[in-house]
Amino acid sequence: MPQQTKNVAKKRPVPTKRSPVTGGVKAAEAKVFAHTGAEDDVRITALELAPGKLSPEMEAYFKKCDEKLGFVPNVLKAFAFDDGKLQAFVDYRQQLVQNTENLSKLEIEMIATAVSAQNRCFYCITAHGNAVRQLGGPVLGEMMVQNYRAARLPKRQRAMLDFAVKLTIKPWEVEEEDRDKLRRAGFTDRDIWDIASVAAFYNMTNRLASATDMRPNSVYHGQAR
Amino acid sequence: MPQQTKNVAKKRPVPTKRSPVTGGVKAAEAKVFAHTGAEDDVRITALELAPGKLSPEMEAYFKKCDEKLGFVPNVLKAFAFDDGKLQAFVDYRQQLVQNTENLSKLEIEMIATAVSAQNRCFYCITAHGNAVRQLGGPVLGEMMVQNYRAARLPKRQRAMLDFAVKLTIKPWEVEEEDRDKLRRAGFTDRDIWDIASVAAFYNMTNRLASATDMRPNSVYHGQAR
Amino acid sequence: MPQQTKNVAKKRPVPTKRSPVTGGVKAAEAKVFAHTGAEDDVRITALELAPGKLSPEMEAYFKKCDEKLGFVPNVLKAFAFDDGKLQAFVDYRQQLVQNTENLSKLEIEMIATAVSAQNRCFYCITAHGNAVRQLGGPVLGEMMVQNYRAARLPKRQRAMLDFAVKLTIKPWEVEEEDRDKLRRAGFTDRDIWDIASVAAFYNMTNRLASATDMRPNSVYHGQAR
Amino acid sequence: MPQQTKNVAKKRPVPTKRSPVTGGVKAAEAKVFAHTGAEDDVRITALELAPGKLSPEMEAYFKKCDEKLGFVPNVLKAFAFDDGKLQAFVDYRQQLVQNTENLSKLEIEMIATAVSAQNRCFYCITAHGNAVRQLGGPVLGEMMVQNYRAARLPKRQRAMLDFAVKLTIKPWEVEEEDRDKLRRAGFTDRDIWDIASVAAFYNMTNRLASATDMRPNSVYHGQAR
Amino acid sequence: MPQQTKNVAKKRPVPTKRSPVTGGVKAAEAKVFAHTGAEDDVRITALELAPGKLSPEMEAYFKKCDEKLGFVPNVLKAFAFDDGKLQAFVDYRQQLVQNTENLSKLEIEMIATAVSAQNRCFYCITAHGNAVRQLGGPVLGEMMVQNYRAARLPKRQRAMLDFAVKLTIKPWEVEEEDRDKLRRAGFTDRDIWDIASVAAFYNMTNRLASATDMRPNSVYHGQAR
Amino acid sequence: MPQQTKNVAKKRPVPTKRSPVTGGVKAAEAKVFAHTGAEDDVRITALELAPGKLSPEMEAYFKKCDEKLGFVPNVLKAFAFDDGKLQAFVDYRQQLVQNTENLSKLEIEMIATAVSAQNRCFYCITAHGNAVRQLGGPVLGEMMVQNYRAARLPKRQRAMLDFAVKLTIKPWEVEEEDRDKLRRAGFTDRDIWDIASVAAFYNMTNRLASATDMRPNSVYHGQAR
Repeated sequence: MPQQTKNVAKKRPVPTKRSPVTGGVKAAEAKVFAHTGAEDDVRITALELAPGKLSPEMEAYFKKCDEKLGFVPNVLKAFAFDDGKLQAFVDYRQQLVQNTENLSKLEIEMIATAVSAQNRCFYCITAHGNAVRQLGGPVLGEMMVQNYRAARLPKRQRAMLDFAVKLTIKPWEVEEEDRDKLRRAGFTDRDIWDIASVAAFYNMTNRLASATDMRPNSVYHGQAR
Repeated sequence: MPQQTKNVAKKRPVPTKRSPVTGGVKAAEAKVFAHTGAEDDVRITALELAPGKLSPEMEAYFKKCDEKLGFVPNVLKAFAFDDGKLQAFVDYRQQLVQNTENLSKLEIEMIATAVSAQNRCFYCITAHGNAVRQLGGPVLGEMMVQNYRAARLPKRQRAMLDFAVKLTIKPWEVEEEDRDKLRRAGFTDRDIWDIASVAAFYNMTNRLASATDMRPNSVYHGQAR
Repeated sequence: MPQQTKNVAKKRPVPTKRSPVTGGVKAAEAKVFAHTGAEDDVRITALELAPGKLSPEMEAYFKKCDEKLGFVPNVLKAFAFDDGKLQAFVDYRQQLVQNTENLSKLEIEMIATAVSAQNRCFYCITAHGNAVRQLGGPVLGEMMVQNYRAARLPKRQRAMLDFAVKLTIKPWEVEEEDRDKLRRAGFTDRDIWDIASVAAFYNMTNRLASATDMRPNSVYHGQAR
Repeated sequence: MPQQTKNVAKKRPVPTKRSPVTGGVKAAEAKVFAHTGAEDDVRITALELAPGKLSPEMEAYFKKCDEKLGFVPNVLKAFAFDDGKLQAFVDYRQQLVQNTENLSKLEIEMIATAVSAQNRCFYCITAHGNAVRQLGGPVLGEMMVQNYRAARLPKRQRAMLDFAVKLTIKPWEVEEEDRDKLRRAGFTDRDIWDIASVAAFYNMTNRLASATDMRPNSVYHGQAR
Repeated sequence: MPQQTKNVAKKRPVPTKRSPVTGGVKAAEAKVFAHTGAEDDVRITALELAPGKLSPEMEAYFKKCDEKLGFVPNVLKAFAFDDGKLQAFVDYRQQLVQNTENLSKLEIEMIATAVSAQNRCFYCITAHGNAVRQLGGPVLGEMMVQNYRAARLPKRQRAMLDFAVKLTIKPWEVEEEDRDKLRRAGFTDRDIWDIASVAAFYNMTNRLASATDMRPNSVYHGQAR
Repeated sequence: MPQQTKNVAKKRPVPTKRSPVTGGVKAAEAKVFAHTGAEDDVRITALELAPGKLSPEMEAYFKKCDEKLGFVPNVLKAFAFDDGKLQAFVDYRQQLVQNTENLSKLEIEMIATAVSAQNRCFYCITAHGNAVRQLGGPVLGEMMVQNYRAARLPKRQRAMLDFAVKLTIKPWEVEEEDRDKLRRAGFTDRDIWDIASVAAFYNMTNRLASATDMRPNSVYHGQAR
């Protein structure tokens, strides 16, 4: 029988708070497993990189993030050791991921999450799974994380994710027939570029995050549940 | 930049409630993606199986689940077309999964979730990811779902999961050296049996769930976040 | 009851003759490779588990096995350190594997063997390969062990094994189309459950056997050849 | 419970005879599954190739096979549509597989079987599994077919098979360290050539057999059991 | 015996010229296989994207490419349908790939080629294989394309490529031990970032190129041979 | 005839110009990466095998190679430690690879290269990639090395390579449907034998070369570019 009980649930009145669950777990054990995520907000990557100086533009960007989200995403902090790299990353993401013609924000995040789940990237699944929950609801978010095939998607989104995942796993087998499947599902050639661009981008960030053990802001875990 | 904003967050006062997020998403789009999970509580598998009659013992068991959890786990309902099968499943799980000598309940659920994540099983990741959250905290639960290597585990638990995952992916390569790694991490031979038994069991349920498109109770998604 | 004895060997003077073979093995070498299987009947697993006490019911079951088969299958002995686990295993197998609606005994064993061959499990291939030989003839048994695609099966059995093997290798890719293939091959939804249940069960036992280095009764090797 | 019973076993006084098992199986079912292997001795491959004329040398070779083995291996018949190809195949096998310096005949057949099992080749597993049974005993033969890791081999043979199997699965990862493992296990550089040559040869025949659906002589199945 | 002859070699006075080889090949056959690469310079991707207008900055960049290289790399032309995307791509590559602290230009190109070979990307292997040939000699270039393990590299470069390739194939298995291997090979944490950044970038471009069937400038093939 | 000499290098001042390249390599670095391939013509394999004595027939064959090609292919030298093995290899290749009924020399080399690229074999990709360049042009050669799917092949050749590559990667899944695809593409049963025979042969040589670290004649790299 599943472990959770009503009582335990009742003891957690602030479900997004990152404190260890104590009800029903022996204190000693709980102590060992203090995976509160708090450390992920302090030590963001496994690399010791000398902190850099932010340009006014990037400082303003960080401030804006903080105002809108309540925090600065750790990936940005990870890039902040070098303002030039940070700026280029932000611009690239803006131009190549967010500046799509027809893909919706939700669809972009669905691709990001399904690709990241394929690469089992802790940072990116956490951040983009959250975004899907925000935009498409909590259950859709979980499906993108666990197995996108479990979602009963419109033909369009299913074709989109099939393409993105094949491109992730076996890019060398992507051929005209794969593009034609997207076209038959209603996508234009520009859409194909956008889908490819988004899927390719997260194949990059997944690897940058995995290579450096980048840790997601702990606040993501509890949002939009 | 991530899609979620403070405003959106503020609009969700009951974050675990399974209603579609509406803020910031066009109504039309939200309608298309009505992945509320509600349908998962109605149509539990893709198979049309004539309902069976529960024995008094199993009826009592269902009642007990409902009292303790607030619901009957869908996997039990899926087996309920045949009381004999249901009883055997419950007993087997009791004897071979829950009746461990030294493994804690949390460790059992960690194995269940890491194995299920390997097999990308929507039902089992959802149910057991929830159990890990309940017992070990929300962040540990997410790590087991996404990539167990991201968790900074004690040597003991890491060895346990490495064994369980290798047994899942390449059982034919498990040899004495693998058992010795567990022994060196402090496990007894009985513990090895228990780890293997738990990992093997979820390799079974993962496949039964995937074969039948078994859907988890939607309530799991929002618990212990 | 070791299969390869001097007497048995002496009985094969002509049909097994193999020109470059018989004279070419030095006595010393033959001694080194004394893989008689006899040790497999003594040390059943790699784990040292304190022997348990059998309940009268399980004692009777062991006795019945011995009368019918001439031996107690080693898998049962392996579970015997804990009567509760043994009983649950026997019941589960009875209810979830043997209690099928339309699958024949031979079909159940074909699935068991094809799945076990996929997982390269010494114990299970040996035991269930034997069962296929007994029920379907020696050549069919060998095909299930080596490559089930080599058998010229009726469409029904081929679809059944394709499903079981896909469920073994890539359970996350099993979808409605796979179930529909079974339906088109004449299977009911209950049959789909049964096929899934059998395939899933052997994915479990394969892993339990591999994790513990479980050894099959040596008598299996020579039967029904 | 396993299907075989003492009664069934008693009904098979000539265990290598290739007739369908009837005891315990309904006649109708037995008829459907007439996998006697008899057809494999008639239609050797899936290709329709005009029969060629054998040279006197090859005619003599076939005759010698028949005298010594009681049959001509089907692989030779498959090549017989072109006498030049047949002769080259026989010579190559003699020179590159059988003409080893230190590898025993049994070791050659162990490599052949382990490699063929990796490639799941019905023809080659059958023929060379038989050879291992003849030379090393029935149980060793079964282990080579099912999972060579199950055999408790001397360090030398284990290293030999590890090399051969890695060369089969991931030849691009074979490096000096792999050769050094063989050297440390007592093999000379000439032995490394021989092991590689044998493993490489069966990677070739496995593919030729699979490409043409080559069928093994049915007599192999029952020998040396 | 290999097909090339001295005569054929003599007939090719301008070896980098992209005209079909005619000596020794029947005219008809040569006609069929007119893979001159010329078409790759005309139709750069499989997508029909409306041409965009270049900014003066990007126009200048294209002109500079043409002056220095004799051509504009097709990847830049592929991005040119949208000046913002083009600019962001050029900047990102400058900042995240070329702006390394200690990695040499050759090392960057070695990573690019080894990663692209893993993903079997026609565009990127061609372009970066050429760069390795230019910087490290033709044979090193070929080794990076075919199997980087064939190169007898200093420990440093070997560790670098092992990391980059593991990050490409199994990013989820990259852990602290992998970073430590780089550190032990003499790399700083900043170098680890740079290696990861380069490898991640080409995992992105590989997928963008494969998704769109991007074709490399034909001139690459013949350079630095 | 080493390709990369000082003179050759000096001859490439303009067309290979690559802006960030020419001035950027420190002399020291260039020295470290002296991958001239010259050593590959001296130490042909990683094995120390006592040189054997060539028969007059093989001596004549080597002489003929030298006259026609300007060199003796290293694979032949590698076999030369044993004249019987060398002779058998040459004959087998003649009979089973070169003696095809309808496959052209180019098609044989295309299969050889595509198969070798799959197995990432440095020796065989180099030698047969060169042969494709000689017979089909430099660009076709590069495509066969990098990803045969990038070539816009006639349906016939595409089907041929799809079959050869599937036979290389998953021989156990080759079935009648795969043969029928070849038939539908215009191949006879004899052609199927020939395609299989060529693909199987290079699966053998790939492994022999990888197992022994066989090095290709350096002259191959620069030919037919």
